[in-house]
Amino acid sequence: MASMEFWFEYGSTYSYLSVARIGRMAQRAGVEVAWRPFLLTPILSALGMPKGPFLTNPAKMAYMWRDLERRAAWHGIPFRKPSHYPPDTLLTARIGMVGCQDGWCREFTERTFALHWTEDRPIGSDGNLGTVMRDMRLEPAEILARAQGDEIKAALRAQTERARTLGIFGSPTFVVEGELYWGDDRLKEAMERACTSEFVPPDVDLLFEI
Amino acid sequence: MASMEFWFEYGSTYSYLSVARIGRMAQRAGVEVAWRPFLLTPILSALGMPKGPFLTNPAKMAYMWRDLERRAAWHGIPFRKPSHYPPDTLLTARIGMVGCQDGWCREFTERTFALHWTEDRPIGSDGNLGTVMRDMRLEPAEILARAQGDEIKAALRAQTERARTLGIFGSPTFVVEGELYWGDDRLKEAMERACTSEFVPPDVDLLFEI
Repeated sequence: MASMEFWFEYGSTYSYLSVARIGRMAQRAGVEVAWRPFLLTPILSALGMPKGPFLTNPAKMAYMWRDLERRAAWHGIPFRKPSHYPPDTLLTARIGMVGCQDGWCREFTERTFALHWTEDRPIGSDGNLGTVMRDMRLEPAEILARAQGDEIKAALRAQTERARTLGIFGSPTFVVEGELYWGDDRLKEAMERACTSEFVPPDVDLLFEI
Repeated sequence: MASMEFWFEYGSTYSYLSVARIGRMAQRAGVEVAWRPFLLTPILSALGMPKGPFLTNPAKMAYMWRDLERRAAWHGIPFRKPSHYPPDTLLTARIGMVGCQDGWCREFTERTFALHWTEDRPIGSDGNLGTVMRDMRLEPAEILARAQGDEIKAALRAQTERARTLGIFGSPTFVVEGELYWGDDRLKEAMERACTSEFVPPDVDLLFEI
């Protein structure tokens, strides 16, 4: 089956545009997506950019909010500018890793991003995580215990190290047959590559309308 | 008439993709383009990034070269990875400003980028500038004297300051009715905005095939 890896950081703004689209696009395209949460801050810190590309660049930050709003409208994705930036994403990423083990990372990630980006309930906050776990009928006490246990902590560290080894320096990044595609702007190109690497669907363009 | 400003730095790699496309796209779309050379380094230096986004980030740099090659192929643009990065662009930008005064900035810019990106004759080198001026039947001694005169130096400084004031932090940037679009990935969106702000051509999509 055609497949791709979807590497993402929960605090990445542009990653919302991909999280909101990739699941449905991939289903239509017949592409299997491996969801790969990781932490971007350790990678950027090692490059001397602990605050990422926006907080130190007010012009770029202002542009980013406007551009996100335009791109969300372009794709037909609900958008409400969050009050908080950046969110604290460590616990959310650890829960995402639990989801990878249990097979619900996609649903958890779509829901936690949606609350952040449409209802201003910040990723990582109790109001966000509590609601998502309740709606998914997960047992919070059990999930939180596992998320904060040594096994998941080590797994997230290893996953972040693997991202760095692959050459990943930003979120979202799509990996198809070892080829990196960085940024929501490359989602379509990456999906086409994943499709054509094994088969060409009847009308590729139709697959990318959501 | 529909119009846009095209702000670019001669040393910007992704700007090649826009320089190679925007003239023809705009002609087909009936959009007038104001070519606006500026210097990105002073703007990034003021933000504490004198080396730009790539030289300090090896993973991003490696990705950039691969991505450029893919995007050029995607757009059908000739591409040969230059040996030198980054080029010294000060003199070229000053000549570009002379071209803005005289009405040949577009042709000069297309030619100087083309030599850099298809024949590995670096922007700013004698082999590049000499060839371009000869092919355009410009008088090198006169052009160089004007380019290095006080009037053009001041004009380029003022243009760079205007870029900063507009909120520009990267190249290429397209400005349509005060709205910024950063990056070659936004050229189509900016052109559509320029079109629809005054009229809608018969089939917009056809305009963007080069």
